[in-house]
Amino acid sequence: MLNFDKEAFMKVMKGAVNVKPEVDKIVKSVTEKGYRTLFLVGSGGSMAIMLPFDYLLKAHSTIDVRTEIAAELMVRGSKFLNENAVVVLSSLSGTTKETVAAAKYCKEHGATTIGLVGELGTPLAEIADYVLVNYSENDFAGDSIYIQLFELLFGFMAAKGEFPDYEEMMEEFKNLPEALYCVKESCEPKMSEFAKKNKDETYHMLVGSGSVWGETYSYGMCVLEEMQWIRTKTIHAAEFFHGTLELVEKDTSVILMKGEDETRPLMDRVERFAEQYTEKLSIFDTKAYELPGISDKFRKYLTVLVICTMFEVLSKHLEKERDHSLDLRRYYRVIEY
Amino acid sequence: MLNFDKEAFMKVMKGAVNVKPEVDKIVKSVTEKGYRTLFLVGSGGSMAIMLPFDYLLKAHSTIDVRTEIAAELMVRGSKFLNENAVVVLSSLSGTTKETVAAAKYCKEHGATTIGLVGELGTPLAEIADYVLVNYSENDFAGDSIYIQLFELLFGFMAAKGEFPDYEEMMEEFKNLPEALYCVKESCEPKMSEFAKKNKDETYHMLVGSGSVWGETYSYGMCVLEEMQWIRTKTIHAAEFFHGTLELVEKDTSVILMKGEDETRPLMDRVERFAEQYTEKLSIFDTKAYELPGISDKFRKYLTVLVICTMFEVLSKHLEKERDHSLDLRRYYRVIEY
Repeated sequence: MLNFDKEAFMKVMKGAVNVKPEVDKIVKSVTEKGYRTLFLVGSGGSMAIMLPFDYLLKAHSTIDVRTEIAAELMVRGSKFLNENAVVVLSSLSGTTKETVAAAKYCKEHGATTIGLVGELGTPLAEIADYVLVNYSENDFAGDSIYIQLFELLFGFMAAKGEFPDYEEMMEEFKNLPEALYCVKESCEPKMSEFAKKNKDETYHMLVGSGSVWGETYSYGMCVLEEMQWIRTKTIHAAEFFHGTLELVEKDTSVILMKGEDETRPLMDRVERFAEQYTEKLSIFDTKAYELPGISDKFRKYLTVLVICTMFEVLSKHLEKERDHSLDLRRYYRVIEY
Repeated sequence: MLNFDKEAFMKVMKGAVNVKPEVDKIVKSVTEKGYRTLFLVGSGGSMAIMLPFDYLLKAHSTIDVRTEIAAELMVRGSKFLNENAVVVLSSLSGTTKETVAAAKYCKEHGATTIGLVGELGTPLAEIADYVLVNYSENDFAGDSIYIQLFELLFGFMAAKGEFPDYEEMMEEFKNLPEALYCVKESCEPKMSEFAKKNKDETYHMLVGSGSVWGETYSYGMCVLEEMQWIRTKTIHAAEFFHGTLELVEKDTSVILMKGEDETRPLMDRVERFAEQYTEKLSIFDTKAYELPGISDKFRKYLTVLVICTMFEVLSKHLEKERDHSLDLRRYYRVIEY
């Protein structure tokens, strides 16, 4: 696979799966203390990574979940951010300024904080009341944090009696590293072909929905815009027909990120429209990929993991075909702002 | 003013202000019955119009407010959508399919529904438990619905003792029609100039925050994309530095929609960046406009009204300078989808 270190990937994935005993302690302790509101807080990619769980908890749980952009939460405040709140934040480096500041802000308001980091001893790890640690290369950070968030947040649901199959799903999570690797291998030809065909595209419309929407939003912003300097419009499938559709012409690149949750019919509708009006429709559908060792009944929850791991492969191929390093920046860590 | 009927505008604005007695009845009745969750539901523009109130209630109230995209809510469901829920929906025509379907869906789940419509006897008006009616031309629908939503939703806050100045603000609302007209007149030269200068732009980056973010999102999608066929990226100021900034070059059009709430410093930060790296920065700041008859202490809540009324003027000038009718569509009401 292009620019891919399988050994490193498997190590990171296994590490993520293996935070389970620590998750159990946190869920038990937090649930025993009791909480009213669960905040998921981040910025950009680290906020977007929370969105699948915002969706999944809203769909399947009575937990009052609220996803917030760190900087906005800190200036706006929330009447629910108090000693009855639990706040989950993630920062691989443990140093992301806005995330660290948000963790402090939430603690000052009495909330219990849980930090997901790549390393102990970092500012977020020091501030958070509870910490999950799994070192990861940037390349696999999405998968790694998603796995840990599944363990943690479905753990909270299970503790409320809202996800009785939790331990069974967690048992199957041991098969995830290999399963996700299989996805990567299977999708690579498609990703390579897309990158070759679209290397000169200057604009993509990305459409997603449900538990996949967060990946749609962040792939547009954090990869295509930030790392490849390509303009994007990311649009939720349920919003597509309320404006953005009018931009579709026969040479407009439309990318569908299809998952397998309840919102799939919304994506089907966009697909039926787009296949009539553009010759540049690209469909990336998690359904095309097997997840060996994962039961069918768990697939629909996990599609964001599949999409994420697929698009990590795409990034490498875009980097190669466009001869544009994923590490190149005009501004981030180049100038002060 | 270009393509503007002052008499019609004043009539619609006064009509919106005058729903107050009906609002009082609804707030009293709903509050007496009691509710746990307040849903704001819509699609595209009618969802975006709820976002300022999502922000304002999260900032100032203990009301559990949840904004939902109609089509997603209906496939995903919510454990909070039951007899303890109140749902607010709006449709000027009263016929918008997804909104009418969502109202039915919410009622079937036991929720109390409040519909904002332009006309009685329409499907949404028939379905909703409570109705606010104010006829409006499409041109002024945004202002009209905002005014009614301020009355209704700040009414809910007031009923909980969370906005003691409510009646005072409502008294001042009688000055809003004239105040908003003043804004329109004052901003027209700036809007005309922008339209002339930017008539050939093929891409705009729009940045907003806080109670203005919904207008940023919808102006990009419902006006620039849908009505003018111009590509846009709409990005929240708190998210701007997490990816999209990398697209800014010296000839990139960046439009800032600045309001006056707590999130203004987030916009200032984007401004400080953008003024260094693009020669095409356009700043639309509500602070530049007087609102005669409105106290300073109420301004920060009302900036979305100011932004909305300003950008209605811009639309007319874009239509003229670009010789592209705001009514022209490739697909909407042209083909079936």
